[in-house]
Amino acid sequence: MYFDYTATTPMDEEIIDTYCMIQKKYFANTTSLHLLGQKSNNIYLQMIDEIKHVLNCNHDIVFTSNATEANNLAIMGCVENKKGTIITTKIEHPSVYEVFQHLENNGYDVKYLNVDSNGIIDLDELKSYLNNDVLLVSIMWVNNIIGSIQPIDKVIELIKPYKKIKLHVDCVQGITKIKPNFSFDDIDLFTFSAHKFYGPKGIGVLGYKKNFNLDKRLFGSNAQFGIKPGTFDLGLVVCCAKALKKYCNLLDKNFKYVKELRDLFVNNIKNSKVSFNSNDNCSPYIINISVLNTNGETIVHLLEAKDIYVSTGSSCSSKLKKPEKTIMAISDSYDKAISTIRISLSYLTTKDEVMKLVDEVNKL
Amino acid sequence: MYFDYTATTPMDEEIIDTYCMIQKKYFANTTSLHLLGQKSNNIYLQMIDEIKHVLNCNHDIVFTSNATEANNLAIMGCVENKKGTIITTKIEHPSVYEVFQHLENNGYDVKYLNVDSNGIIDLDELKSYLNNDVLLVSIMWVNNIIGSIQPIDKVIELIKPYKKIKLHVDCVQGITKIKPNFSFDDIDLFTFSAHKFYGPKGIGVLGYKKNFNLDKRLFGSNAQFGIKPGTFDLGLVVCCAKALKKYCNLLDKNFKYVKELRDLFVNNIKNSKVSFNSNDNCSPYIINISVLNTNGETIVHLLEAKDIYVSTGSSCSSKLKKPEKTIMAISDSYDKAISTIRISLSYLTTKDEVMKLVDEVNKL
Repeated sequence: MYFDYTATTPMDEEIIDTYCMIQKKYFANTTSLHLLGQKSNNIYLQMIDEIKHVLNCNHDIVFTSNATEANNLAIMGCVENKKGTIITTKIEHPSVYEVFQHLENNGYDVKYLNVDSNGIIDLDELKSYLNNDVLLVSIMWVNNIIGSIQPIDKVIELIKPYKKIKLHVDCVQGITKIKPNFSFDDIDLFTFSAHKFYGPKGIGVLGYKKNFNLDKRLFGSNAQFGIKPGTFDLGLVVCCAKALKKYCNLLDKNFKYVKELRDLFVNNIKNSKVSFNSNDNCSPYIINISVLNTNGETIVHLLEAKDIYVSTGSSCSSKLKKPEKTIMAISDSYDKAISTIRISLSYLTTKDEVMKLVDEVNKL
Repeated sequence: MYFDYTATTPMDEEIIDTYCMIQKKYFANTTSLHLLGQKSNNIYLQMIDEIKHVLNCNHDIVFTSNATEANNLAIMGCVENKKGTIITTKIEHPSVYEVFQHLENNGYDVKYLNVDSNGIIDLDELKSYLNNDVLLVSIMWVNNIIGSIQPIDKVIELIKPYKKIKLHVDCVQGITKIKPNFSFDDIDLFTFSAHKFYGPKGIGVLGYKKNFNLDKRLFGSNAQFGIKPGTFDLGLVVCCAKALKKYCNLLDKNFKYVKELRDLFVNNIKNSKVSFNSNDNCSPYIINISVLNTNGETIVHLLEAKDIYVSTGSSCSSKLKKPEKTIMAISDSYDKAISTIRISLSYLTTKDEVMKLVDEVNKL
């Protein structure tokens, strides 16, 4: 019983078939001049159009190897060789947070926004930091640990008067799961990866506004605007675009079902040692709990013995054995932050599985 | 009729099957703590061992998205935040050459080694530049335009006395094709990508000596030693390792056959407008010719009309319409460098296809 869909999802069988078809029929490099290369290139351009159509945006689209690389290229590309203030939150994914820490160590003035007990930023705090020296604001849409959803619409409004400030939104846990209350065209840079929505691993997406001169971090060719040069796999690109379209179309249906699963879980937990770190306003795909006096990693292994797979938090930091950063930020409780597990759901999860999980969590 | 195998190869059907199997059975992140994640991680570690076994080396192995990224991380990782001289050749692939140009623009003292008319570096010239201020020497094993094979064994000997100098070898066109006359353990960093030997696109390999403190360019997690953090695809990793093993085992057999194909082509060209830029000592997988008074791109399209696919050079620079850098370096002839095409062969190429190509080239 897999409850770690926030970390990664299995590939949709239809998407696996698409991968195989592209490898067999269109293996030439998109940059090759000959007809086979041109055919690959035409499909590549179609896929970019499809992604822009699905997201209803007009950005330049670059395919990276994962969201971590996309976040690195986005943030570094905005601030490198510049001076100024950069703003993010205390609950970003490590692939944003650690880039900011690196930049802080290299002389940038970094503001880390606090969040309240619901995991939501304080717009007044953000407002207080905004001025013409700010280069970049990077705020995740949906948090990967508790699923809190930031008011990106209001962030956009606050930043709008400052023409120099770039807004980056890490969309990894929002795309195909949560209906955006903002227009992608109102954010300067967005990032996500296909393996979170039943697409392949090995592909991330960085969208950035046309004519925005993103600084280059990689060198080698003009492929993908020179931002991510070198050979990329058309198969992964097509799979990413297809999975995005398919699961954006299923958003409402899957949301409704997963919300039922979440409610089923929450309503049946009777263990007084369990406290919920995520609430009703969070993404229903993520349920985060702390279990009094029990280490998160211990819980993972106790449940594993029952063939139940959950996580302590981001798999990108799973082996660090530190208190969970987001839980620290919302609770200021070290005890909660070391005794936390993340249960994450999918349209593939059954009610029966949820009830089995409930039974085991009640026994902890 | 595809004669552009130096640019990319179709995936081996067996490797496509491997990809599908891994996606279906082992989709969990290798960094996840639960059993599914541990199973993925065990396979990942096995694959690293397999790659090291095949190459008979003891390096740390990092999987990137392509050779371009591997070359960038290798070179930048050696020199960032340091001062000194860096050495490369005039005929490197753009993913090395353009990194050096970027570094030159940022204050590094860069030496670009000349090559002779056979495309081989002058060891005395290299020797003359070596001293304790040299940070890095980056020399490709097999050139991607004409297939000239550098004396890596002798380069290793020259560099050995200088403990501080790191040696990077771009192995993209050598691996699985040419038997190395050197030990991988004698080079500090090597790079290649799987799609050049019937593996998938979307995966490159960077090997670097254990305990060598490569500078980080990406931030987010400790996955892959923190050099290439974030989620990677176990499927691509397994496919890379399997393809490497399979085609290293077939090296001698395929070399012999492709050499026959090359000889067949060379011996049957009767067109006096054709001159050969590659010779008998080059990799037989690459035949490079110039056609008097005919633009390379024009030749590509003339042959394309006969369903024959060749290239003007690296697909990474195919759309730049500049004289081909390697041909300029070996011939010092602008005319040759704009009228060049690269024909590249595979064990999949038939003698019949070669003779059809001969007919068309003789008519040019």
